[in-house]
Amino acid sequence: MNFPSKLIEDAVNEISRLPGIGKKTALRLALHLLKQNESVTTSLSQSITKLRTEIKYCQICHNISDADTCSICMSQRRNRKIICVVEEIPDVLAIENTSQYDGLYHVLGGVISPIQGVGPDELKIDSLFSRITISDQDNHVEEVILALPATMEGDTTSFYITRKLKEYGVKVSTIARGIPVGGELEYTDEVTLGRSILTRVNYSAD
Amino acid sequence: MNFPSKLIEDAVNEISRLPGIGKKTALRLALHLLKQNESVTTSLSQSITKLRTEIKYCQICHNISDADTCSICMSQRRNRKIICVVEEIPDVLAIENTSQYDGLYHVLGGVISPIQGVGPDELKIDSLFSRITISDQDNHVEEVILALPATMEGDTTSFYITRKLKEYGVKVSTIARGIPVGGELEYTDEVTLGRSILTRVNYSAD
Repeated sequence: MNFPSKLIEDAVNEISRLPGIGKKTALRLALHLLKQNESVTTSLSQSITKLRTEIKYCQICHNISDADTCSICMSQRRNRKIICVVEEIPDVLAIENTSQYDGLYHVLGGVISPIQGVGPDELKIDSLFSRITISDQDNHVEEVILALPATMEGDTTSFYITRKLKEYGVKVSTIARGIPVGGELEYTDEVTLGRSILTRVNYSAD
Repeated sequence: MNFPSKLIEDAVNEISRLPGIGKKTALRLALHLLKQNESVTTSLSQSITKLRTEIKYCQICHNISDADTCSICMSQRRNRKIICVVEEIPDVLAIENTSQYDGLYHVLGGVISPIQGVGPDELKIDSLFSRITISDQDNHVEEVILALPATMEGDTTSFYITRKLKEYGVKVSTIARGIPVGGELEYTDEVTLGRSILTRVNYSAD
């Protein structure tokens, strides 16, 4: 693509480095920004810069945070006896949006993947174990929920954590895999359907 | 959506103001930026700010430009006797990418739309007429190609410009409307098909 201006070419190149945004979309966005007030582009670029330079990560659960400890880890209204282990930050947001969970979180920052050279040491797994050991009587962790992806890497990570956690006598559970609510049996893949039969739960008619 | 950090909330709000980007995509982009080097976000935000503050518009054709006059208007290798009139800047890029046109351009910045309160005075129409009148002997404009959208507003604008250009004795043409190359007759809408019959051209078998 030939650009009539170096400035627009630079902007298009930078914007199209974002995931899922190609050159055409980038050009559309750049031309949109050109039509806006200068305040719009200023606040956009400021918020991007600030996001990257000022963001902090919670020292306890490794979620993003405005302070050294995130609001979830600070909160006294949450159940401090349960920790939900997730792969990435968006997973925390997704679970929070269900309003079905009031425990704490632990963000691993990835899953064990020998092919990609990601071992337990590259992840925040050690700090998970120290959270379980150093917790005082009141905040003693009783259950760890593994909410990791249903992939080979996710399963490997779940297996690794479960085996290690046995030493601490903590209950380990994993989120249910099965047919989505509203999903049709007919169109469900066989792995999910098979797993949903193996992990069937008692039916309560209330 | 609840955000664990004000910084991420700000960034998501700003990014989701872009056209075609919702809150979920904005969050994905923001979290992607968090994982990148600081140089990536710095150059992204700098290019956006620079784009908006430093961009110039060509004084002749109103296309975006790095200087007061754009490279197309400056070029002596282009046919200065033809001006192609388009609605917006992306139209110039689209025509340039065909490599089928070597004349000059004129960007109106919109089309006449009485409903939206856009009259000829809101557009760069007067400057088009002055380009035709003030051109010296060597650069005398002989033809104006109207490449405006095939909408009521586009047709109104074409009609207005054509009527005015009659006074200057300039040839006025419009880009062909018809069935796209590779398109099937069966699936073409009746307006396009009808127009392609009315505006049929002589068939040359070479």
